[in-house]
Amino acid sequence: MENLIVSARSAYAYPLLIKQLLINAMSLYGDQEISYRGELRYTYREFRERVGKLANSLSALGVHHGSTVAVMDWDSHRYLECYFGVPMMGATLFTVNVRLSPQQILYTLNDAGADVVLVHPDFVPVIDQIRDKLTCKPRFVLMADGQTVPDTAIPFAGEYEALVGAASPEFEFPEFDERTKAATFYTTGTTGDPKGVCYSHRDIVLHTLTATASLCSPREGQRMHREDVYMPITPMFHVMAWGIPYVAITLGLRTVLPGRYAPEMLLKLRAQEKVSFSHCVPTILQMLLHAAEAGGQDLSGWKIIIGGSALPPSLCEAALERGIDIFAGYGMSETGPIVALAQLPPGYQPASREEEVRLRCSTGRPVPLADFRVVGTDMRELPRDGQSQGEIVLRAPYLTRSYFRKPSASEELWADGYLHTQDVAVVHENGFVQIVDRLKDVIKTGGEWVSSIEIENLVTRVPGVRECAVIGVPDARWGERPMAFVVRQPDSEVGAEDIRAELMNHVSAQRLSKFAVPEADRIAFVAEIPKTSVGKIDKKLLRGNKAA
Amino acid sequence: MENLIVSARSAYAYPLLIKQLLINAMSLYGDQEISYRGELRYTYREFRERVGKLANSLSALGVHHGSTVAVMDWDSHRYLECYFGVPMMGATLFTVNVRLSPQQILYTLNDAGADVVLVHPDFVPVIDQIRDKLTCKPRFVLMADGQTVPDTAIPFAGEYEALVGAASPEFEFPEFDERTKAATFYTTGTTGDPKGVCYSHRDIVLHTLTATASLCSPREGQRMHREDVYMPITPMFHVMAWGIPYVAITLGLRTVLPGRYAPEMLLKLRAQEKVSFSHCVPTILQMLLHAAEAGGQDLSGWKIIIGGSALPPSLCEAALERGIDIFAGYGMSETGPIVALAQLPPGYQPASREEEVRLRCSTGRPVPLADFRVVGTDMRELPRDGQSQGEIVLRAPYLTRSYFRKPSASEELWADGYLHTQDVAVVHENGFVQIVDRLKDVIKTGGEWVSSIEIENLVTRVPGVRECAVIGVPDARWGERPMAFVVRQPDSEVGAEDIRAELMNHVSAQRLSKFAVPEADRIAFVAEIPKTSVGKIDKKLLRGNKAA
Repeated sequence: MENLIVSARSAYAYPLLIKQLLINAMSLYGDQEISYRGELRYTYREFRERVGKLANSLSALGVHHGSTVAVMDWDSHRYLECYFGVPMMGATLFTVNVRLSPQQILYTLNDAGADVVLVHPDFVPVIDQIRDKLTCKPRFVLMADGQTVPDTAIPFAGEYEALVGAASPEFEFPEFDERTKAATFYTTGTTGDPKGVCYSHRDIVLHTLTATASLCSPREGQRMHREDVYMPITPMFHVMAWGIPYVAITLGLRTVLPGRYAPEMLLKLRAQEKVSFSHCVPTILQMLLHAAEAGGQDLSGWKIIIGGSALPPSLCEAALERGIDIFAGYGMSETGPIVALAQLPPGYQPASREEEVRLRCSTGRPVPLADFRVVGTDMRELPRDGQSQGEIVLRAPYLTRSYFRKPSASEELWADGYLHTQDVAVVHENGFVQIVDRLKDVIKTGGEWVSSIEIENLVTRVPGVRECAVIGVPDARWGERPMAFVVRQPDSEVGAEDIRAELMNHVSAQRLSKFAVPEADRIAFVAEIPKTSVGKIDKKLLRGNKAA
Repeated sequence: MENLIVSARSAYAYPLLIKQLLINAMSLYGDQEISYRGELRYTYREFRERVGKLANSLSALGVHHGSTVAVMDWDSHRYLECYFGVPMMGATLFTVNVRLSPQQILYTLNDAGADVVLVHPDFVPVIDQIRDKLTCKPRFVLMADGQTVPDTAIPFAGEYEALVGAASPEFEFPEFDERTKAATFYTTGTTGDPKGVCYSHRDIVLHTLTATASLCSPREGQRMHREDVYMPITPMFHVMAWGIPYVAITLGLRTVLPGRYAPEMLLKLRAQEKVSFSHCVPTILQMLLHAAEAGGQDLSGWKIIIGGSALPPSLCEAALERGIDIFAGYGMSETGPIVALAQLPPGYQPASREEEVRLRCSTGRPVPLADFRVVGTDMRELPRDGQSQGEIVLRAPYLTRSYFRKPSASEELWADGYLHTQDVAVVHENGFVQIVDRLKDVIKTGGEWVSSIEIENLVTRVPGVRECAVIGVPDARWGERPMAFVVRQPDSEVGAEDIRAELMNHVSAQRLSKFAVPEADRIAFVAEIPKTSVGKIDKKLLRGNKAA
């Protein structure tokens, strides 16, 4: 057998490391620009130098191969420097979810064992609140960002710009095993403490390559190309902004980091910097559309991937009307994240606008290399009939194998050798997958399974409705019944019976089960629908409120 | 350190195997078409079934994990089935260079240890000639291809279509180490026996992904997209047709296999099948342009990568005039092969047609992940000044670490930890690399280094010249002097002094060293320039003829 395996030395002479994504980007696109809020601009060449300076600065603070460096910042060029500099040293970049509660942030910092924490002034009060309970005893670096720093007793080891400014750009980034931990992020599940998800260098490089292959390969529309201008609108702490900054830098795109998200600022940057490619959650898009309408901004030609939550058809239509080339993407923290994209298929000629919207809002089609299946409880693949509902399970070369220090949750995640997404979906004949619900959000009523998302999509189309969330509530007779929380458009007086009437039309047309129509007293009008720290509808909270 | 490495089980839960390139291609593009010579057509779905049938057929012949299956065929759908089916079984696909001499083919079959040889009728006489000297004792399968089979005593174990037709499509392709040998090809160097180059599954998957990222990412022009129709015109035996069939199938492209290359057939297929993406060596393109001119065919919109030899500017111009979107690619058998592509840069506005042609004919810019350097003899990177000449050395995740059973040649290849290409190049400020010569083809004359390729390009532009090859010949006074072999256009009477006069113009304009102009008696007019088995100018033979 000695000749069968190309020797280990051979295969690993060139491990898949994040630093290799930079090689050609820097040498071919050295003059390309990275900008922060349109206020600060520098070239890829300077970026690369600052990555070296950052490594020297962190090194001086004791960071070495195996250290953990936590970042608490809005989307900035400094964050992008950390995306590369920290893992390239062999340390782990911990992107702290700054929208969690101080207690949860405390838990994640201790669980990950942060050695250094880089802190934007906005998060100084959080650190003040939890500092004496930090068992990991980190050193702190301030990222002043030109802001006034609140009064604090935090013993900062220095300020980012001062440290980086004084350091040498020369740093010999080492080579090491491609399976070395590069980054970690904590996902907040429905129960228990946040769980740490790890990404190795290999994971990130392979995710970058498969995402690039998928994003770039369409003939036109819903694609990324080397002349796009990229601006993330999914926070950089959140699964590394879906890994797309790595794609953008590898391809040499002009990149705009928008800081803290404010609709007016984002729209200003979009126009001023000629941003052509972004990604965000539906809630942000909703806000952008409203702000753009108010300000009369032109959004045409903007390609936006929507993820995090399902893209409601009504929102998709509103975006298309504004000229946005919108489409959904699918993934989770545990999956890299991108495993599917709702790009329209080659040669696609839409039969109707409705059909096109359905495709764009769908879960999409898998990216190359992903073994993406919709299976029954026996793990057998279901027919592609657009009807048979099962769970999405996955294999791909960059999925998280386990949660950090959570063996039983990890085993559950990987039951039967496939990653279980908990998403219930159907597959259409053309290969497009459509999630119908989360496994735990499916409403079991009158012996039928009803999709909460399906009801939400139909209610959102009722004139006067701005947003809707549906959960199942216990019912003595039917097991469960759907309950809808509805936010009205400003000035609208839409009522429960209007909504029921519309839903009954869908029942008459056999597009909806009669069991899916909530009773009038199970349609509640609210001022706001609660969201999780990453902008998803917080159904856990809705259920809790309902129970309370 | 236990937390530093994401566990091996994790990273290799999903090894990079060729079978994973098929997963989504088959599930998303099942109706897509593969055609053979425009005569036979079937869908990706049927292709996948035949891959399973092939595996069962080979299995019945004793092929198992670690076996070597050799193929001697022209470009066919059967070859494409072998590209996938053989390595997916864990066996090694040996793509035999059918243009070698029978003695060399004998050497390579024995060296690789072929267990099974699949033989097209055209190569039955070759096998007849060498069969009794085959120490590897292979079994033979005929690929009849509807042709009359020459009289032979070869004890065929069966005929491809008959075997495949009778087999079951169900075959459980196993999972194994991604470093397992998937394919092998023999490269004919300048000295000694052909050398075996191996590609692992990991190599092929990573080459596919980086080539896809490079090929698909331009905004327009010199790019591949999902609606392209692909036809290879580099033989499938030759570094797996540059690995591009794997890219095409991964993206779900309609694919046309042209059989044996004949210009009229290729042009007929191009028109009939609406082929939009191909690749070939300059000699084939030359023939295609002549045949198209004769037949009045329209070639506009055809994207063609040129590799194997440098693309002469005059040929590039002729192709552009016919509407071909032509550009060079760079690599060698040892490099996967693609490590650079001469795609025009983002936002490129040519200053002149001449400059554009120079870029398209250049060696190009490196693909993602490739550490591509031009270095001096001390291995230091040279300045990007378009002047400093050095050798191209490489690292990339899919380079051949060693030649099969050739330790000393392997050590030479990988001196100083970089793969040595033996190509001498300059790097321009914009990152474009330009090969000026092969290390061994540079002419050392009058204390200067003169590029044989530079002289060839200028001579080829002289009216009446069709082709030119330049070598260095010993000279008592100057060390070496250039000697040019010239093929005239039909009916042309261009003479040595015409050529010298044109070259002297370039000397006057300081575009050429005076040492580069051959004496009149060192300009020889010949009927044909000898080519190697893969279509490159055979300078070894020219030197030999000259010496003789």
